[in-house]
Amino acid sequence: MVRKQKAARAFASDNWAGVHPEVLEAMVAANDGHVQSYGGDPYTNEAIARVRSELGEDAEVFFVFSGTAANVLCLQSMVRPYEAVICAETAHINTSECGAPEKHIGCKLLIVPSPHGKITVAGIREHLHHLGHPHHVQPRAVSITQATEYGTVYTPQEIREIADFAHANSLLLHMDGARIFNAAVSLDVPLRAITSEVGVDALSFGGTKNGLIAGEAVVFFNQPLAHDFEFRRMQGMQLSSKMRFIAVQFIALLTDELWRRSASHANRMAQLLAGELAGIKGATLTQPVHANEVFVLLPREIIPGLQERWPFHVWNEANAEARLITSFDTEEDDVMSFASLVREAIGSRQK
Amino acid sequence: MVRKQKAARAFASDNWAGVHPEVLEAMVAANDGHVQSYGGDPYTNEAIARVRSELGEDAEVFFVFSGTAANVLCLQSMVRPYEAVICAETAHINTSECGAPEKHIGCKLLIVPSPHGKITVAGIREHLHHLGHPHHVQPRAVSITQATEYGTVYTPQEIREIADFAHANSLLLHMDGARIFNAAVSLDVPLRAITSEVGVDALSFGGTKNGLIAGEAVVFFNQPLAHDFEFRRMQGMQLSSKMRFIAVQFIALLTDELWRRSASHANRMAQLLAGELAGIKGATLTQPVHANEVFVLLPREIIPGLQERWPFHVWNEANAEARLITSFDTEEDDVMSFASLVREAIGSRQK
Amino acid sequence: MVRKQKAARAFASDNWAGVHPEVLEAMVAANDGHVQSYGGDPYTNEAIARVRSELGEDAEVFFVFSGTAANVLCLQSMVRPYEAVICAETAHINTSECGAPEKHIGCKLLIVPSPHGKITVAGIREHLHHLGHPHHVQPRAVSITQATEYGTVYTPQEIREIADFAHANSLLLHMDGARIFNAAVSLDVPLRAITSEVGVDALSFGGTKNGLIAGEAVVFFNQPLAHDFEFRRMQGMQLSSKMRFIAVQFIALLTDELWRRSASHANRMAQLLAGELAGIKGATLTQPVHANEVFVLLPREIIPGLQERWPFHVWNEANAEARLITSFDTEEDDVMSFASLVREAIGSRQK
Amino acid sequence: MVRKQKAARAFASDNWAGVHPEVLEAMVAANDGHVQSYGGDPYTNEAIARVRSELGEDAEVFFVFSGTAANVLCLQSMVRPYEAVICAETAHINTSECGAPEKHIGCKLLIVPSPHGKITVAGIREHLHHLGHPHHVQPRAVSITQATEYGTVYTPQEIREIADFAHANSLLLHMDGARIFNAAVSLDVPLRAITSEVGVDALSFGGTKNGLIAGEAVVFFNQPLAHDFEFRRMQGMQLSSKMRFIAVQFIALLTDELWRRSASHANRMAQLLAGELAGIKGATLTQPVHANEVFVLLPREIIPGLQERWPFHVWNEANAEARLITSFDTEEDDVMSFASLVREAIGSRQK
Repeated sequence: MVRKQKAARAFASDNWAGVHPEVLEAMVAANDGHVQSYGGDPYTNEAIARVRSELGEDAEVFFVFSGTAANVLCLQSMVRPYEAVICAETAHINTSECGAPEKHIGCKLLIVPSPHGKITVAGIREHLHHLGHPHHVQPRAVSITQATEYGTVYTPQEIREIADFAHANSLLLHMDGARIFNAAVSLDVPLRAITSEVGVDALSFGGTKNGLIAGEAVVFFNQPLAHDFEFRRMQGMQLSSKMRFIAVQFIALLTDELWRRSASHANRMAQLLAGELAGIKGATLTQPVHANEVFVLLPREIIPGLQERWPFHVWNEANAEARLITSFDTEEDDVMSFASLVREAIGSRQK
Repeated sequence: MVRKQKAARAFASDNWAGVHPEVLEAMVAANDGHVQSYGGDPYTNEAIARVRSELGEDAEVFFVFSGTAANVLCLQSMVRPYEAVICAETAHINTSECGAPEKHIGCKLLIVPSPHGKITVAGIREHLHHLGHPHHVQPRAVSITQATEYGTVYTPQEIREIADFAHANSLLLHMDGARIFNAAVSLDVPLRAITSEVGVDALSFGGTKNGLIAGEAVVFFNQPLAHDFEFRRMQGMQLSSKMRFIAVQFIALLTDELWRRSASHANRMAQLLAGELAGIKGATLTQPVHANEVFVLLPREIIPGLQERWPFHVWNEANAEARLITSFDTEEDDVMSFASLVREAIGSRQK
Repeated sequence: MVRKQKAARAFASDNWAGVHPEVLEAMVAANDGHVQSYGGDPYTNEAIARVRSELGEDAEVFFVFSGTAANVLCLQSMVRPYEAVICAETAHINTSECGAPEKHIGCKLLIVPSPHGKITVAGIREHLHHLGHPHHVQPRAVSITQATEYGTVYTPQEIREIADFAHANSLLLHMDGARIFNAAVSLDVPLRAITSEVGVDALSFGGTKNGLIAGEAVVFFNQPLAHDFEFRRMQGMQLSSKMRFIAVQFIALLTDELWRRSASHANRMAQLLAGELAGIKGATLTQPVHANEVFVLLPREIIPGLQERWPFHVWNEANAEARLITSFDTEEDDVMSFASLVREAIGSRQK
Repeated sequence: MVRKQKAARAFASDNWAGVHPEVLEAMVAANDGHVQSYGGDPYTNEAIARVRSELGEDAEVFFVFSGTAANVLCLQSMVRPYEAVICAETAHINTSECGAPEKHIGCKLLIVPSPHGKITVAGIREHLHHLGHPHHVQPRAVSITQATEYGTVYTPQEIREIADFAHANSLLLHMDGARIFNAAVSLDVPLRAITSEVGVDALSFGGTKNGLIAGEAVVFFNQPLAHDFEFRRMQGMQLSSKMRFIAVQFIALLTDELWRRSASHANRMAQLLAGELAGIKGATLTQPVHANEVFVLLPREIIPGLQERWPFHVWNEANAEARLITSFDTEEDDVMSFASLVREAIGSRQK
């Protein structure tokens, strides 16, 4: 048997965390007899209803296994191979999905510089040329990440501006919502205020980073995009046979506002962490802290020692920028203890 | 909340069943603190070791979400787009994966007639022509299913013959092992006796149909096939971030021979069911019953009534051939009760 | 320099033949100054007008390099990857394009047995099951070859029946017209009588096998299929920069009925050949001879000797079925001389 | 019939030009009787021998229809979908092939800024991170264009530096040689001095822009890359059935140094044009003129009038940068006449 894991935590990623206990309980409760496979079960129906209740009654909802899959299959329903997706240089679809969009959709990504993870209408506009010219890929979708890979958050108005510009230019708007709960909590708005109400056409609705085992949803607000998604999901190798066990995780997440409780906690821990680090001479925050991520420049030589006790990733090797992520189970003591360690490491270095 | 499900069972599929309690317990136990994501955790290491211990110490093991993905990614490592996979007409990859092999690999499947789900060297040989001719796809892999989609089982010697022929002709051998445990139990041999010891190059090692939530492994016995699989899995949208929760399911399945207990029970229930049906005039078994599937011709008009109480699929609408699947949680009473219902339905019809 | 080729001819294929002199003359004449590239030139406009004049004024016409490309790009505009193309077992797209449809479209071909190269509504209907079921590819197009790979020809009524059945079942009809001119001549009907007038949605309109250097057209009668074809052609690597030189070949082919003169001659030579072979004891015709292909069983041992003087392909090694193709430049003497050789070879063998 | 084209010329592109008369003559001469199709003919053998004689005796040579196809199929033999191609921002494969590399290879292009069309080791090095990490595409090839899309030329030493760096980092080097003849002439070196002798692994050897109708070759100096190219070309829809007519164009191009005569002339015309424009106040050259392309800033308002008489493309709408291309058939009078028109247009504007 596996040796008992030390119940330690890290600042490496919200997917180093486990599962929220309420989610596991719901899975155990759902393990009762036979139900129809592939989503024809009451749990899936209930989960879809709950997602609609949060995001919009007209939403089309489909569960998949992974966030990369949610992004790729969303976009595959939006663009043809000769079309293109405009996205941030820092977008997960661009940097961290091993070329899955290119492989599965066959399309090109057109990149917008994004110093703090966000893109603007001005950046998108730069790619709107050679329209109708067969030698050039044709922009067809814009993809933004909420909260961004740098932990920043688009306001509802910023999203609305992008959506309006997109639609005025025959572009569709996709949102990678791997950390959408952290964004909603940060803005203190309902989920629909940053999705269906501001012009998002398709959403990767991510549960895994907020305490699920593995559960993501593809949500179409632009309904015609959904018309053949059942086939795309199956051919895309993302149709779970025992679907109830993904669905019930979403039910738990959307029950008694578990999503808000978990994301609020994570965000609060990030604020605490940012505050502590801001007070340490020799540590420099590099990004606004809106959600559950803190980016900080640290003296390069202290990093390995810190990582040994509190694993985290160095995001940019060139300037020793570290990424620290908090999650639903981060404890205040973790933050204080880590901050102390940083303070100490910098201090002893300066002697 | 979801209305409490009636704890009923069905003969529809082994994926209508839930999860074995020992698997869920292991998942709960593994939900303890942070561990490295994407497979760098001790559970994954342990699970790989257990798979190797069953299948062969040199096996390369990778966990994925779904059986279709296991098949497609295995084969993608084996064939180039201009090459081809030879398989049974009845193969899951041919009939039930919505063209995923063609979409993801870009290759052609070459079909061998398979009245009882199995193929032979003679059938494979039919496709070995036009070798080296650029107008024709080049056969490069053979794929067999163990147990087959018709519930029949290849003997070790049959597999060895196919493997030897394949290798003698520069073909690789893939096994879709979605129900491999039922096959091993049926033959009363260890798992390696139908895989690594008889020439299989790559195996889709399926846990979901034997009591897991969602857990499949890609296993390469031919090690060079594995060299870039980490990238193929990630680009293939099958890399689980919280990998420990797939891994721990396999640990449970391979602990105290849970796999054997579950598969033995399911097979025994299938034998019981086959025996009962064989004794009913008006019901005709159509396939040898080796594993946990029973195929039976039933009077067409009684089917809807039976399905209402005991859901199952009609496999062949043309001749009203029903497919009945037993699982780890099928109870003897279920079988007897279903058989009675069939007897009764046929009886009242004949009056 | 290349050694002067012996001006011999063969029965190997209509693409062993060269180019019709009128075609080359037209190319030389078109080599005059600069014109717009990529199809924006007057030759292309004129060629499109000529194609429309033969096939239908509403046709959308696009020139490409090769017949395989015409087939693949036609079908790519008709089916999505999770859909399927129903075609004859003997179809060029199935047997002789090295899996290009699977690679480029990502879709599955569903095969209908076709002893003489043709398929019927009954055969197509066999594949219309599991509609709407995400595990199964969804038939979306039917592809027929006119004249078929066995040299047989569909009558206008046969095509109309297939088209009507297809459309009634939400299927589109594609025609691989690599030898469409031979078919039209065989039936003694205009080209539109076997295309636009009988329900064909998209046509691969092949010139190469009827005396062009390399020139094929994709023709859509179902206009919405054409809406993004400019992009598909460019991304499909089939947009010729100096398009005028493909276009002008079609202009020549459609001037003074060159197509009819060439195809009539080839068909007549095939009839002559078939007649001669039918009179030889020991040679057995295996297919009706409608167009410019003759299939014949020959004593296996005489084949190499014949091929040495008159190259041709053995179509089926199993039964020594030879395929003999005539072309626009086959001479009556070629036929008589070949027939004599066969007669002689069989005769000396029987002694 | 097409109205006689006015024998005008343009500065729009070297593919607005027609065919060199020696090429057409060779095609006419090759139209003699039947020869084996698909490249089994003596013309193809001869053409391959000639290419080898120019580029290196060990080169593997394959003819295809188009330059985009040559690039895509070269790179498809070099990289897997999860790998990446590093190239200039201005590379034809990035800007002008409608996403064909992404569609056919499924890979990502990693972009290096290239103000004058060229990239350097420093730019390539920026992309060599996250090696071995499955979330990130893995750089596997570098692609450079010779002459570049901006008409600049890499020296042999520059190519050697890139090749050495590439090979030291397990990268392969591809050259898009759509205008390789212009580059060789510009440098006054043999073709092999900028290809096989300086570390290029694969070359798109382009004839179309130097006076062919449509003829490109894929040339592998790194021989293992060629091992399955016959299949890739056929599946890639680029196998010409009447191959002799592509081959014979290359024979003509490589006979009596036609390639050098044509490219020298085009380059000389570009120098003349650049000299004239440099002397016009109000016209500003923006790129070094190494080959047959001249980039020049012109007053925006005079452009339409110039284009009416001498078609050319505005390369950059933002700053009214025009691209002027000369070809084998550009006449000195064309250049002088165009320059006069520019002078006049600018002059009358300044009044």
